[in-house]
Amino acid sequence: MIIEIADRTVEPLVTRIVESAHDVRTLLFSERIFITVSGDERCIDKDRLKATPGVLRVVDTGRSPYFLASRECKDEDTHIQVGESVFGGNRLVIIAGPCAVENLEDTLETAEALKRVGISLLRAGAYKPRTTPYNFQGLGRAGLEILGEVRRKVGIGIVSEVMSPEDVETTAGYVDVLQVGTFNMTNSALLKRLGRTDRPVLLKRGASSTIAELLKAAEFIVYNGNPSVILCERGIKTHETATRNTLDLSAVPVLKRLSHLPVVVDPSHATGQSALVPVMSKCALVAGADGLLIESHVRPETMIRPGDGDQALLPAQVGSLIKELRALGRVVGRRV
Amino acid sequence: MIIEIADRTVEPLVTRIVESAHDVRTLLFSERIFITVSGDERCIDKDRLKATPGVLRVVDTGRSPYFLASRECKDEDTHIQVGESVFGGNRLVIIAGPCAVENLEDTLETAEALKRVGISLLRAGAYKPRTTPYNFQGLGRAGLEILGEVRRKVGIGIVSEVMSPEDVETTAGYVDVLQVGTFNMTNSALLKRLGRTDRPVLLKRGASSTIAELLKAAEFIVYNGNPSVILCERGIKTHETATRNTLDLSAVPVLKRLSHLPVVVDPSHATGQSALVPVMSKCALVAGADGLLIESHVRPETMIRPGDGDQALLPAQVGSLIKELRALGRVVGRRV
Amino acid sequence: MIIEIADRTVEPLVTRIVESAHDVRTLLFSERIFITVSGDERCIDKDRLKATPGVLRVVDTGRSPYFLASRECKDEDTHIQVGESVFGGNRLVIIAGPCAVENLEDTLETAEALKRVGISLLRAGAYKPRTTPYNFQGLGRAGLEILGEVRRKVGIGIVSEVMSPEDVETTAGYVDVLQVGTFNMTNSALLKRLGRTDRPVLLKRGASSTIAELLKAAEFIVYNGNPSVILCERGIKTHETATRNTLDLSAVPVLKRLSHLPVVVDPSHATGQSALVPVMSKCALVAGADGLLIESHVRPETMIRPGDGDQALLPAQVGSLIKELRALGRVVGRRV
Amino acid sequence: MIIEIADRTVEPLVTRIVESAHDVRTLLFSERIFITVSGDERCIDKDRLKATPGVLRVVDTGRSPYFLASRECKDEDTHIQVGESVFGGNRLVIIAGPCAVENLEDTLETAEALKRVGISLLRAGAYKPRTTPYNFQGLGRAGLEILGEVRRKVGIGIVSEVMSPEDVETTAGYVDVLQVGTFNMTNSALLKRLGRTDRPVLLKRGASSTIAELLKAAEFIVYNGNPSVILCERGIKTHETATRNTLDLSAVPVLKRLSHLPVVVDPSHATGQSALVPVMSKCALVAGADGLLIESHVRPETMIRPGDGDQALLPAQVGSLIKELRALGRVVGRRV
Repeated sequence: MIIEIADRTVEPLVTRIVESAHDVRTLLFSERIFITVSGDERCIDKDRLKATPGVLRVVDTGRSPYFLASRECKDEDTHIQVGESVFGGNRLVIIAGPCAVENLEDTLETAEALKRVGISLLRAGAYKPRTTPYNFQGLGRAGLEILGEVRRKVGIGIVSEVMSPEDVETTAGYVDVLQVGTFNMTNSALLKRLGRTDRPVLLKRGASSTIAELLKAAEFIVYNGNPSVILCERGIKTHETATRNTLDLSAVPVLKRLSHLPVVVDPSHATGQSALVPVMSKCALVAGADGLLIESHVRPETMIRPGDGDQALLPAQVGSLIKELRALGRVVGRRV
Repeated sequence: MIIEIADRTVEPLVTRIVESAHDVRTLLFSERIFITVSGDERCIDKDRLKATPGVLRVVDTGRSPYFLASRECKDEDTHIQVGESVFGGNRLVIIAGPCAVENLEDTLETAEALKRVGISLLRAGAYKPRTTPYNFQGLGRAGLEILGEVRRKVGIGIVSEVMSPEDVETTAGYVDVLQVGTFNMTNSALLKRLGRTDRPVLLKRGASSTIAELLKAAEFIVYNGNPSVILCERGIKTHETATRNTLDLSAVPVLKRLSHLPVVVDPSHATGQSALVPVMSKCALVAGADGLLIESHVRPETMIRPGDGDQALLPAQVGSLIKELRALGRVVGRRV
Repeated sequence: MIIEIADRTVEPLVTRIVESAHDVRTLLFSERIFITVSGDERCIDKDRLKATPGVLRVVDTGRSPYFLASRECKDEDTHIQVGESVFGGNRLVIIAGPCAVENLEDTLETAEALKRVGISLLRAGAYKPRTTPYNFQGLGRAGLEILGEVRRKVGIGIVSEVMSPEDVETTAGYVDVLQVGTFNMTNSALLKRLGRTDRPVLLKRGASSTIAELLKAAEFIVYNGNPSVILCERGIKTHETATRNTLDLSAVPVLKRLSHLPVVVDPSHATGQSALVPVMSKCALVAGADGLLIESHVRPETMIRPGDGDQALLPAQVGSLIKELRALGRVVGRRV
Repeated sequence: MIIEIADRTVEPLVTRIVESAHDVRTLLFSERIFITVSGDERCIDKDRLKATPGVLRVVDTGRSPYFLASRECKDEDTHIQVGESVFGGNRLVIIAGPCAVENLEDTLETAEALKRVGISLLRAGAYKPRTTPYNFQGLGRAGLEILGEVRRKVGIGIVSEVMSPEDVETTAGYVDVLQVGTFNMTNSALLKRLGRTDRPVLLKRGASSTIAELLKAAEFIVYNGNPSVILCERGIKTHETATRNTLDLSAVPVLKRLSHLPVVVDPSHATGQSALVPVMSKCALVAGADGLLIESHVRPETMIRPGDGDQALLPAQVGSLIKELRALGRVVGRRV
């Protein structure tokens, strides 16, 4: 249950009415004041709540389980500024970079090459989610150091994944956007901790999760105090095997209709094939995406995991794609 | 197994070598001669086959199960002419119309309105696949009569579904393109019978079928003698519930890479929401689709099945969409 | 809509009230009289119907789309007699045999060996549904002749698949139970035609179909006049690849709760591994299945399609399984 | 890559050969010595490794990604002792209890009632994974205190979920088995941390995960030093909606064939319906499960989340089920 109140004078009374629940908090969001209620609602007198002066609305979170993330709560688009880029505005934001930080040289060279073609946000992982312990797990703290150095030297923003609540604070010290990977979309301990950082969060949809489940995961972050969530469609698990996952492009207009949060598309992980990345990137722009997340590396063939190279574009190819997107953007009313 | 031969003089010898299989046929396809072999291949002497003069290649259909439909067999795009429209050429072909033929008046009025906005192919069903016997099953033969009359009066081509081998011949007498619905993609008795008609076939992907399975279904039709198959992506069954199905737009470039057959996209059935049809139509054009299949009705709210109305555009909306597609086509090098 | 009436004197009046729909029929089912209504119900005066004397109940088939197949219509279990076997009674019925009829010798030998271990129903296909035209499509009519001969010589009942409405009548002349394969569960033209035969139908669940969709497919058959439908759970398509499909054993108690029709389980196609067939057969018995469909062949390694051999048990293994099932049956109150 | 060595004298040499990888460790497992290698293997001289005296085998973890969890590594069943219960032996172990710890009274009363019917392991959650922040998230530390008190007073073992690496140590102080929920099966930070505790881990299969993915998740725990992993099949996400998930019972014999680890089945979460729990529990025993995880509560109707009550059995029903399982166990050679 969420209660929107007119001003803080009603807070004590409302809090008293709902105190039988497990967790009652006051949240300032979108210049409004909400009392959020979690847990047992059975003893709360809803009629009394509604009749209380200063209570603007009582939201049934059973029916609106991602109220804070929804247009029902906030109609205008949320803009999230990262350096000079703004997610959620008219201009398409392109994040590019290698899957994992493998060493300083490659990361630096890739970042510089991408910067030259106009990219201002580098994605690269220091902590890598893997399905087996034998795959390269990322350089961890050493990877963060590399990213910090690249950020200073190149003057590029950094997007990087965090996998454990324990690493959130340290990682936030090195990067501009904290990424939640598809394997951790349902990791609510991590989502809760990310609600208490001031870094924007790029939240990837779980490969078997619905749009509503993605929005409910975003709700955990906003509810815990961080309004800056960028949603990411990255392909879902289906019976199709010709592509690694199935890019759900209809999810883009659906998410934009349901939520005020920005939406980016990751065509690299969705398709797993670099040859499909340009065409699906263009489709994503037409579908209304606010940004793209594109795998890129200066020497894809040298990447530790061979599969990662298959889906990476060269920085020059990212540059060509940007030009094509720009031409297309002019027809659909978008800047690139 | 398929054996491509240089000329018909080698046919008797090759046929003798493979005669232990269950079904051996000669197929003229794409100006070449193939001996197709179905069934038990275990006693065939493949080395002898390969060494036979006049044998150009021996195709392992275990590895290439949709050889005839693939670019491996025929690299150049197949063009399928229906009236003045050509599927597979540079110009996007738009098929539009109501889900079912309900009566002469509505069908005629819809056809005329669509013709006025530039549509030259009307889709409307006389035989309707349903999940229960209580839903309207289509007008059957009477529906075909209506379609015949609309075709004559309006001068518009007709695309209509056929569900039983017994109805193929009759239906072919009334319509220009025979449609196979998603429920019948794996109905091989129907596919085989459609291989023996001279009408083009619009083959919809099964809602849980892979791209490879769609191509194997197309192979049944081509193998049985009909080279004119139009593939249709119409959304696949996933865990997502915000849209009726999940439109698999990556399937378009993948199908175009694997196959020489034209590919159309049905955004109406895929999304189930008329509001999403224009945006997904534009994405389909950008993805490389050769055509679109769009549900349209003059009075969607009067349709017998309420759900059908939800996904239908008014003919005027189809007209506006065509204009938007035309502008977009100019950027991506396509005529609309 | 379905209207149950007390006797035929009310039939004319009821029929007149509902005549604006597309298809109105009288069905005698389970010793009761139903007026079934298909198509447009919008102009039917439901209040008048309910107030008509002799109308026992008016069923909303929107809410009860498989009413005839459900316990809501008929609470007691349907018993379907085939030779000496009864599906739906206390005794488990085991159908066994090869996937396809390949020749007289193997079929005869397999049937004799199975008969010796106590099997009285042989399953073998003359028409085979395949995903490509290059796989063995079955012997067709010649296969039916073989089955007819085996039936006479061995004195065993025959269960065999039919794939096209055109073949229903001929096939019914040779076999005791007509099987609908998983690829044709949504082939409503075939289901309708099977409603007009007097042979029992074994209806396999579509690999991506829900329990409700299976029951709606059964409804087509019962609605069209054939009350003898045996439902078959044969594994569903999931992300799991360790087994060919995922056997949905919970579907057995769910189907038995929802429907009065008998339920058999096919562990051979579900798992694709002969080693898993005995254990899953035992689970099926415990789950409440009325029967089993088990792939068996005297020489699995000689089968044309290698995969078919992998899931086949030898007749002697079927014999051992029967003994184990019998012991288990004693604990769970079932005869085998 | 994993290298099994004869004794520790070869460890320095082998470690030197593989030092270019990212992570090299020595693991004592199942009374043998393994050098495990994670990360970049490209510069490792495999021929030299294989030729090194004292190297017993070199395992390609690309082909055997869950080697430590597999029968390839260890053929005999792993037995995991928890109090007087042993997972993986002949006797079926039944864990029962409420979904969440809501208060001391209910938990204590349920534990006592379950103890009386023969249950020696109570499952109850202090940390609850939820899809929205508004659902009851568990009592956390206070819940652990309650569990500690119940354990002392009733003399029952405790199984409880842990969701964050930060909570592993504290939780391990209160409970006997640490549970990983379905939402966290791919949370590798958590799995790694659980590898460094000495408590057994009950690892639930992800709702969209394959059997191989479950085993790879188990591998993370064993690789990091904890050999005591109990696998749990709890239903997978499919298109079926009649049950909450689809219980994949074939997974039980498949897991038992592939792995030496014990396997338990959770029919309560899989089906979501208490009426299906007894029948599916019996199927699980027949399928070869080593244990069951059954939701039970003294007053299901009072549970905070209404859905939880739907799937809970009363302790007395658990008692009746135990009797039925015992009778069945005698036929299939298992003690209960």
